[in-house]
Amino acid sequence: MSIREECGVFGVFSGKKEHLETMVYYGLYALQHRGQESCGIVVNDSGVFHAHKDLGLVSEVFSKKTLQQFPKSSIAVGHVRYGTTGATNRSNCQPMVVNHKKGKLALAHNGNLSNALELRDELELSGAIFHSTSDTETIAYVITRERIRCGSIEVAVSNAMKRLEGAYSLVMMSSRKMIAVRDPKGFRPLCYGIRPDGTYVVASESCALQAVGAEFIRDLIPGEILVFGKEGIVSRTEHCSMQEKKICVFEYIYFARPDSVIDHVSVHHARLKAGKLLAEKYPVTADVVIGVPDSGLDAALGYSRASGIPYEIGLIKNKYIGRTFISPGQDERFDQVKIKLSPVKSVLKGKRVVLIDDSIVRGTTSKQLVKLLREAGAQEIHMRISAPPFLHPCYYGTDIDSEDNLIACHHTTEEIAKMIGVDSLGYLPVEGLKELAETNEICSACFDGKYPTAIPTDTRKDRFEGKVE
Amino acid sequence: MSIREECGVFGVFSGKKEHLETMVYYGLYALQHRGQESCGIVVNDSGVFHAHKDLGLVSEVFSKKTLQQFPKSSIAVGHVRYGTTGATNRSNCQPMVVNHKKGKLALAHNGNLSNALELRDELELSGAIFHSTSDTETIAYVITRERIRCGSIEVAVSNAMKRLEGAYSLVMMSSRKMIAVRDPKGFRPLCYGIRPDGTYVVASESCALQAVGAEFIRDLIPGEILVFGKEGIVSRTEHCSMQEKKICVFEYIYFARPDSVIDHVSVHHARLKAGKLLAEKYPVTADVVIGVPDSGLDAALGYSRASGIPYEIGLIKNKYIGRTFISPGQDERFDQVKIKLSPVKSVLKGKRVVLIDDSIVRGTTSKQLVKLLREAGAQEIHMRISAPPFLHPCYYGTDIDSEDNLIACHHTTEEIAKMIGVDSLGYLPVEGLKELAETNEICSACFDGKYPTAIPTDTRKDRFEGKVE
Amino acid sequence: MSIREECGVFGVFSGKKEHLETMVYYGLYALQHRGQESCGIVVNDSGVFHAHKDLGLVSEVFSKKTLQQFPKSSIAVGHVRYGTTGATNRSNCQPMVVNHKKGKLALAHNGNLSNALELRDELELSGAIFHSTSDTETIAYVITRERIRCGSIEVAVSNAMKRLEGAYSLVMMSSRKMIAVRDPKGFRPLCYGIRPDGTYVVASESCALQAVGAEFIRDLIPGEILVFGKEGIVSRTEHCSMQEKKICVFEYIYFARPDSVIDHVSVHHARLKAGKLLAEKYPVTADVVIGVPDSGLDAALGYSRASGIPYEIGLIKNKYIGRTFISPGQDERFDQVKIKLSPVKSVLKGKRVVLIDDSIVRGTTSKQLVKLLREAGAQEIHMRISAPPFLHPCYYGTDIDSEDNLIACHHTTEEIAKMIGVDSLGYLPVEGLKELAETNEICSACFDGKYPTAIPTDTRKDRFEGKVE
Amino acid sequence: MSIREECGVFGVFSGKKEHLETMVYYGLYALQHRGQESCGIVVNDSGVFHAHKDLGLVSEVFSKKTLQQFPKSSIAVGHVRYGTTGATNRSNCQPMVVNHKKGKLALAHNGNLSNALELRDELELSGAIFHSTSDTETIAYVITRERIRCGSIEVAVSNAMKRLEGAYSLVMMSSRKMIAVRDPKGFRPLCYGIRPDGTYVVASESCALQAVGAEFIRDLIPGEILVFGKEGIVSRTEHCSMQEKKICVFEYIYFARPDSVIDHVSVHHARLKAGKLLAEKYPVTADVVIGVPDSGLDAALGYSRASGIPYEIGLIKNKYIGRTFISPGQDERFDQVKIKLSPVKSVLKGKRVVLIDDSIVRGTTSKQLVKLLREAGAQEIHMRISAPPFLHPCYYGTDIDSEDNLIACHHTTEEIAKMIGVDSLGYLPVEGLKELAETNEICSACFDGKYPTAIPTDTRKDRFEGKVE
Repeated sequence: MSIREECGVFGVFSGKKEHLETMVYYGLYALQHRGQESCGIVVNDSGVFHAHKDLGLVSEVFSKKTLQQFPKSSIAVGHVRYGTTGATNRSNCQPMVVNHKKGKLALAHNGNLSNALELRDELELSGAIFHSTSDTETIAYVITRERIRCGSIEVAVSNAMKRLEGAYSLVMMSSRKMIAVRDPKGFRPLCYGIRPDGTYVVASESCALQAVGAEFIRDLIPGEILVFGKEGIVSRTEHCSMQEKKICVFEYIYFARPDSVIDHVSVHHARLKAGKLLAEKYPVTADVVIGVPDSGLDAALGYSRASGIPYEIGLIKNKYIGRTFISPGQDERFDQVKIKLSPVKSVLKGKRVVLIDDSIVRGTTSKQLVKLLREAGAQEIHMRISAPPFLHPCYYGTDIDSEDNLIACHHTTEEIAKMIGVDSLGYLPVEGLKELAETNEICSACFDGKYPTAIPTDTRKDRFEGKVE
Repeated sequence: MSIREECGVFGVFSGKKEHLETMVYYGLYALQHRGQESCGIVVNDSGVFHAHKDLGLVSEVFSKKTLQQFPKSSIAVGHVRYGTTGATNRSNCQPMVVNHKKGKLALAHNGNLSNALELRDELELSGAIFHSTSDTETIAYVITRERIRCGSIEVAVSNAMKRLEGAYSLVMMSSRKMIAVRDPKGFRPLCYGIRPDGTYVVASESCALQAVGAEFIRDLIPGEILVFGKEGIVSRTEHCSMQEKKICVFEYIYFARPDSVIDHVSVHHARLKAGKLLAEKYPVTADVVIGVPDSGLDAALGYSRASGIPYEIGLIKNKYIGRTFISPGQDERFDQVKIKLSPVKSVLKGKRVVLIDDSIVRGTTSKQLVKLLREAGAQEIHMRISAPPFLHPCYYGTDIDSEDNLIACHHTTEEIAKMIGVDSLGYLPVEGLKELAETNEICSACFDGKYPTAIPTDTRKDRFEGKVE
Repeated sequence: MSIREECGVFGVFSGKKEHLETMVYYGLYALQHRGQESCGIVVNDSGVFHAHKDLGLVSEVFSKKTLQQFPKSSIAVGHVRYGTTGATNRSNCQPMVVNHKKGKLALAHNGNLSNALELRDELELSGAIFHSTSDTETIAYVITRERIRCGSIEVAVSNAMKRLEGAYSLVMMSSRKMIAVRDPKGFRPLCYGIRPDGTYVVASESCALQAVGAEFIRDLIPGEILVFGKEGIVSRTEHCSMQEKKICVFEYIYFARPDSVIDHVSVHHARLKAGKLLAEKYPVTADVVIGVPDSGLDAALGYSRASGIPYEIGLIKNKYIGRTFISPGQDERFDQVKIKLSPVKSVLKGKRVVLIDDSIVRGTTSKQLVKLLREAGAQEIHMRISAPPFLHPCYYGTDIDSEDNLIACHHTTEEIAKMIGVDSLGYLPVEGLKELAETNEICSACFDGKYPTAIPTDTRKDRFEGKVE
Repeated sequence: MSIREECGVFGVFSGKKEHLETMVYYGLYALQHRGQESCGIVVNDSGVFHAHKDLGLVSEVFSKKTLQQFPKSSIAVGHVRYGTTGATNRSNCQPMVVNHKKGKLALAHNGNLSNALELRDELELSGAIFHSTSDTETIAYVITRERIRCGSIEVAVSNAMKRLEGAYSLVMMSSRKMIAVRDPKGFRPLCYGIRPDGTYVVASESCALQAVGAEFIRDLIPGEILVFGKEGIVSRTEHCSMQEKKICVFEYIYFARPDSVIDHVSVHHARLKAGKLLAEKYPVTADVVIGVPDSGLDAALGYSRASGIPYEIGLIKNKYIGRTFISPGQDERFDQVKIKLSPVKSVLKGKRVVLIDDSIVRGTTSKQLVKLLREAGAQEIHMRISAPPFLHPCYYGTDIDSEDNLIACHHTTEEIAKMIGVDSLGYLPVEGLKELAETNEICSACFDGKYPTAIPTDTRKDRFEGKVE
């Protein structure tokens, strides 16, 4: 397995030359929750590509001065990236730019290939040199080699898709076209819209269309290739309908912003539904329902409505804790959870509390959180998780902790409840996922181990152990 | 008037030498909402003061390396500061350190003196040189001159208080003592607590005590001087009870964090009460109640409960927009409110919406927000403001826009409703403020013009027009 | 033509694990004059490569903290780079690291290939993607493709050399070996030495060996491949002696440091000789000889000795003017030369001055310099240039201005003398170059147009016009 | 004693508004050798002062963007500062700006008061608060207190001078005037000139006048106050001629640039003279004379001329080693002198060498240097020092090592010669200093202990031990 990543992609196609980099800037701001490690923008000024990308948040990488240095352009693409520690290096920043005799290409990619290493081995043995450790470069190579053979960029992309397995939502830019691709299983979301001035916008989530004043048109169909050119939009569907869709259900539970709508389902409503399902499956007598901010709030409201137990604001999240926060580490005087989340004592004191969170990974954070609520006076704590327990690795772009660390791989729900100190604990049943997403066509492999593709046999992480930074 | 500022102060007194700078670091993180412009920490290592302060957020000013450079100490103080543009310079960063023959002093100050300029003139004419434009240096001078006369730092502080008018919550550190002071009217909050290991902690808000694991003991009484020394805590009350308390009611409405408790009243509960009062005063038939995040959420919940109209999450705030966000400015393609706040369309479409916000200043933001909700399909919008209209300047540390710009100074509520495009509009009545704060002893001068002190006759802002940076 | 560059390379091979990055750091400091744009260090910790490289001087790119993050290693390579504006981007920073299935490789390169574009085209059409615009990546590709075929890194390097034309002094590092290569014409210098502890050091110039306490062993023979491994040093000479050596004579005149010795000739002595030749060819009656610091000083001393005219220190160079100096540009109040060079008036007043410089490019700087000396009171100025006039482009790594701008391409020496305002002007004759370098085997193509290799037919600079930064 | 410092001051007075900050920028570049620790510029735009100052070199503190932010102005002052470790903090950066009811003042100061601590104590006890540890603030206070009494800034300055003892060359700026002051003993240089456009320029050294195209008018007379105003220049001489001049002779030997002329004596010529005196006093049979760059070069040339022994370039200084160089410290593999200075072996091999340096402080550097030359093959080394031995502390702005560390305080010349490994050693005799400076009116207290003022009784360095940064 190469680097696992959750990312956001964004692209703009305008008929005329204008300052598209600001549009990408605001679009990436709206997708920042999908990746806080690095970001980048590439614009196309009559075939000349201008790029700026670096490690850091959108607000850190792009200053006013940097934005002003971009020329007017007619196409532009952007990317935000999340990656695990160690692979945090500049060479993995996207969009990736390829300057090739057959034409330029800029790629922004969200997802993970399940056959990345096999492809990489094959490419290296036929003379390729890789500069990054990300799957994106593998995709770029596969497309470039097809391009040498067939000339047209869209045919090259279509041919390349025959070789790629796994999750990939791509926004690409050639000298004259913008191309958006969603993999045939549709693991990751991708949609497009139009601004009042006729500019087309492609984004990982609909919230980014809203941010730049674009009206949502539709999600890309799994397998679809959308080509935006001077002559209009062409949809190539040769890779569609061949396979069942497999949208990642964790997009609804955790990744996506509640104001986004993915494949016709509102993320906010999916979470409300998760809360409702939990209330039905694990009812309890309690005084208040509180959610762990931010992603537990919607489910908490759903639980409250379904159960009739009042919704309350019981935990305040410190909104300034970000990338550069210095964790107390071994300093026993401090409790990391207490610094990040603060209880509203008057809401909790003497109360029987239903606490809604989106997941339990190792259990340590949950344990500290429960301790915090107890100290604030909560009499009973009934924890409800708006997802099933994590039991399996993900090969499609979600960075799940190793099975060794996953508490649910080693303990029953009862044991976990005891370990973290709650009076009762309930996970969303795997069956509920389909209700939440309003479709059977989901990938829930991390919960049930049913992988929609062959899984990698080779996960030699040591291939990339040399830290280049 | 010199610079108006809202700030946060924090101090720690420990019997033994330990790494107090980390405690101040976490305390300031919890108070970051009170000031995002600059911050600083000063620690006392056996009478030697070590300081680090700069422009920026706590996360920007303090790196791991910077924190490690502090020695162990037995007393430490910190500060976060908000200031208006133009005065954003390093010389105004706090805590201020005074190296004087009569002894060292470090001061952290929250509030504004109403007689600052008079004192400054007097001091300059008797040979003082000011390096900053903040009131804090004036306070330092007044205390220092008393100290020359009387020796003891606590007597100097007490004597100095006779000269100071207006708002000041101070945390100070001398060679051997920590001194906390709340002005006789108690404009700004100040409280203290104790950690399990016996360390005393003073903070602007109780949320910061929670963050560092300290148990809340009590708020300082208005006028109280608390002296923390090797022999224990001494409370000097010679300035207490002479005057009526005048806690700033806007602390409850906007400044403070909902998990803080100020003068026995929970901020969250005060906001729930504001929502309840609005529901009683301005009832309406509607489908959902939504709050403008973050400070409108509690009041929205209060309105929902009192009215029976369901609470909903209808607006998502982009949590990455901070100090360095580049505003679209004159670029008409973008709507600043749309970038910062995003509607959950499925929640709003076809609905009659009660919208709760904490204030309307110029009206422009409210207008854009209303437009946003309309576009998202809201059928009716009934706006409720959890504060009365702003009508007057504040001389005690709140940076209110000039009367020229305050929409309520020039228009009736009905006119404002029409201007911003809502179906109805209701402000919290001034009478409600006392209910919300559960006391008559409040300062609500910005709403009703009833100033608890003489107001400055001299507001020559041009005194400081020379930008020193 | 791709980017023209003058660079410095440095490598260390130690039998044991130690902190070699500091040795490379000091080595690069000694080679900083060969490239101020970017630099980098890569160390080899048991086959794992750790790299740090960035734009900037050695002192800017490497902090104490950065150096401390390197692990102990047994091999390490470094690079300093100069490049023309526009190509100043991070992707061109060296040493280049290749992570390939057949083995890792780090390359540091000084020189320019004359067939770079032909090779690049061929590689791209067989599926290569280039990330940089430098020749180094081309070399890396050619070696890597040979490596797939033949396995052994030294055989791959040797085979690759059959494809490479032009100037290349390389220091490379594989998992277990350090390999140094000097091209068969020996355009650029490369030498090696040994430290008292047995560590081998390879460097562009001998001054870098001195800096790290290594004793000079010898220069590499043109075409030689030196392989440093656990078993000792192997010299492969299959590419040697096939062609005449063609050392760049401008290394002696300008590039190299006077304390370096290249191919048995001291740079200081070569310059003294240039001064002597000028004194013999263009004698003049004068009072003082002064050199333009720093590279004109040695030749001035040579002129003084041969002519008997006293040597003087007549121009002081501001030693703080570096990379970040802000040039006065269009501001007519300032004279850029006057800011950089200052006359010692008492030395010049009323004197007949012989002025020694290393080159005249456009003539504008010389003109300003002459004006400066006149203002300081110089009565006569006799300019002597320690090189022949520039008349032709260089394809081997020297960034010479375009012929359009070269004053000597459009004017006779008499015209130039008049244009820059001197009383007489004399250039070193082309014949003198061989005397200076003490050999006929030199490349002086920029002066006489006699190119030692086929020259590029394709110089499409627009291939790389997309600024990626 | 407070912080000892060598500094450079610069000021410009123009009749009209123009971009004076660039002029100060280039002026400070020319004075950078006088202080590399911090720098600053303050400009006066119709009475409004705009300042930028920070730690670092001129090239580091001022970016193009920073310079562009300055408004046009009619007066401007600048400063470069050197300070000992520990006091390297921002509050000591100059020019110092005083915003006072009686008028603004910006001060740039070179020198040290010998009664600084006495004045400081007195000021603090009458209510002054000091923000910095530098003497400059003391001077500002003394002037400000006089200003309150007498109104006129020039009278205040003149009255203040009655209180100040020791070395001070000042350039100050009030709302409408520029004032230059040289202390009555003239310890430090200060001169002024005029540009062709009528702009007056004041600078520590004449080299800075040359850099900005100003013609040298004259040095200030010791004790002189020069007032530049709209009406012209007024020279106040009430403090002149009362005392003998005492120019610091070390300005000629080391501090000043060779192209500067101080009190009618060229620094270059003073150094030539030092070389000549050494040749006369300590003749020797040798093959070459070499100087330790940069300040030993002129004296080496003087020695060569007087002795007839050929001048050579035998040591090359690495010109990139600056503020941020990471010293090898305890790493025995490296020799710090070898990294900074490199021998030209062919010049030294088998030669009898006369080596000229400007001082021997602890002896350690000299010892390493001698070892370096021996390794390069020097057969004999005869060291000549262009100054007498350091034996006493300086109270006027030169940071001389403590007597404990000064090798000459503990050993005879013969012993020192043996310790550092030279065949012979000769120091400039104290009597020679007067010849070199062409006057008896010099301060050579560090060599002969004859202090021109009372020396401080109180040198409590611990007063400032609290590191505020």
